[in-house]
Amino acid sequence: MRHFSLSFGNERLIILDQEGLPSQVKYIEIKNIKDSFQALRSLKVRGAPLIGVFAGYSLYISIKNLKTKSKKVFLKILNKNIEYLKSSRPTAVNLFWALERIKRKVLSNLNKEVNSLKDLIKEEASLIHQEDIELCRKIGQFGAKLIEPSDCILTHCNTGFLATAGEGTALSVIYTASKKYPQIKVYVDETRPLLQGARLTCWELSSRKIETILICDNMASSLMRKGKITKIIVGADRITAKGFVANKIGTYNLAVSASYHRIPFYVAAPTSTFDLSLKEERDIPIEERNSLEVKTILGRIPIAPKKVKVYNPAFDVTPPQLITAIITDRGIIKPPFEKNIRKVFKNA
Amino acid sequence: MRHFSLSFGNERLIILDQEGLPSQVKYIEIKNIKDSFQALRSLKVRGAPLIGVFAGYSLYISIKNLKTKSKKVFLKILNKNIEYLKSSRPTAVNLFWALERIKRKVLSNLNKEVNSLKDLIKEEASLIHQEDIELCRKIGQFGAKLIEPSDCILTHCNTGFLATAGEGTALSVIYTASKKYPQIKVYVDETRPLLQGARLTCWELSSRKIETILICDNMASSLMRKGKITKIIVGADRITAKGFVANKIGTYNLAVSASYHRIPFYVAAPTSTFDLSLKEERDIPIEERNSLEVKTILGRIPIAPKKVKVYNPAFDVTPPQLITAIITDRGIIKPPFEKNIRKVFKNA
Repeated sequence: MRHFSLSFGNERLIILDQEGLPSQVKYIEIKNIKDSFQALRSLKVRGAPLIGVFAGYSLYISIKNLKTKSKKVFLKILNKNIEYLKSSRPTAVNLFWALERIKRKVLSNLNKEVNSLKDLIKEEASLIHQEDIELCRKIGQFGAKLIEPSDCILTHCNTGFLATAGEGTALSVIYTASKKYPQIKVYVDETRPLLQGARLTCWELSSRKIETILICDNMASSLMRKGKITKIIVGADRITAKGFVANKIGTYNLAVSASYHRIPFYVAAPTSTFDLSLKEERDIPIEERNSLEVKTILGRIPIAPKKVKVYNPAFDVTPPQLITAIITDRGIIKPPFEKNIRKVFKNA
Repeated sequence: MRHFSLSFGNERLIILDQEGLPSQVKYIEIKNIKDSFQALRSLKVRGAPLIGVFAGYSLYISIKNLKTKSKKVFLKILNKNIEYLKSSRPTAVNLFWALERIKRKVLSNLNKEVNSLKDLIKEEASLIHQEDIELCRKIGQFGAKLIEPSDCILTHCNTGFLATAGEGTALSVIYTASKKYPQIKVYVDETRPLLQGARLTCWELSSRKIETILICDNMASSLMRKGKITKIIVGADRITAKGFVANKIGTYNLAVSASYHRIPFYVAAPTSTFDLSLKEERDIPIEERNSLEVKTILGRIPIAPKKVKVYNPAFDVTPPQLITAIITDRGIIKPPFEKNIRKVFKNA
């Protein structure tokens, strides 16, 4: 079968359970909001854009069987569900974005009956889904122009078809470019603590027959020194008005090293990842996750003394001066970022 | 009991099997040269200085029961054993150093009988052992002068009493300083792929009641940006005449980031780690290890697709311009390194 990250059809929401990859390829049905919360929290479903699409359908699943005909009751439950879903991943801006978008749609159609509002929610969720596929396609097309025939690209975490409803963000650039330049080589950071690079990105890229080489996170600088990396492309979880990029922990480390070795460092993300209400680094909340993620491997093997303290931030922030360009669905944004980000959003 | 990395007494060589730490604390006896080779190869015994001490006793164990009285036969076997032990870890300069030192001792006493030569080998191995304890003590004393009362020190891999026959190299500095400044805090890189930081250093430091915080390797730069790291101290596997430092993979990455964040970056190593026959970065052979170390966790949990390619260098090389100072048993060496290293060895 051709694998997919998410599908919605015949009123059923199915996702690939990414926790088990690559050894176990299992699809699960999301039947209620607790399933959704659990899937988000445990990273069964992950990747900023996919989280947005998933949140939309999850909201629909959570209200479609409500019996009430009272709009007041309906809206109260809808709001409660939105807040509950948001609380599962407080740093994931796409989660907030998708849920707020659907909420606005509902609020601007309050003249309609409850059943029509349900349909509206489903349509908006489906629209978010279709848009994501299109965004990925555009990011891939814009980004591919930056790639040269014999590039060796380093990437971090997972930003491909497993992270989106389409072809991905950073990996969409690679997929699109590889159609033209099949000899492209990709180095993949394993991405501790949750190993998304080793588990997911290697699986994805290999399934598309792209030459893939797995490394530990701490090997990247050494590869750069040896001239084995010609470009770095990563995704983003949140981008501020000044171009500060929050992304999976380890991204900042790569950016510092890329700058030292004068290697282009690209961020690929849909415009929905920008949060223009934030400006500075300090404005971005950073989720600290359970210490067991570090003290064990995937909760299964202990690798450290039980009682040792752990620092486990899920994300770090890369400042704009370390970024060569940001690849978006509306084109490539180059420095000065504050000015050029403003321009992109003004023209929208 | 008070734990130790190695003991030799009553003709028996006992080591702590470091492969099982921290969950399993097991001591094993080394009975023959195959045990020695296996222990070196599988990193049951590890850490540059401990490898030297271990190699000396291993050589003695390997010949002590030889029945021959022919010096010619004895020397032939001795040489064969030396070469066999060397082949277990081709980047470990202390392995070569200890074995060559004993060989020289034997060759300068060829007037003696086989039994006396055996005694000489044992004595020389014991001397290497005692010297290592003393070297660690001196490194600790010199290095401690660089430490300030409220330092937060980042370290990599394992360089403590588990890596030496004494108090360690980088960790000896921390142990010595902590007697004066007990509020010192230590961040420990987990050190993929073999997780010596998580498994060994956290265990060691915690057993000495030093505040220890475990992080993944890719978090270090982010901590530096936040001002949480005031100094970095690492060990070394080999240092050239110009001050290029080969050490556990990930060291170079820290050095690049330390330089960007203007954080002092120290290397602590005994003078036996210097190999003045080497000058440049390219002169240092880098061991590439089995891909399963990266594709699995400690050979137990697969974390990547079976067939994916892997790049797994055991070491990287840090250039002298990224190093603040090298802490040795003969004092602290500051830049310009080539000149000052030469000076230290001339005065020896």
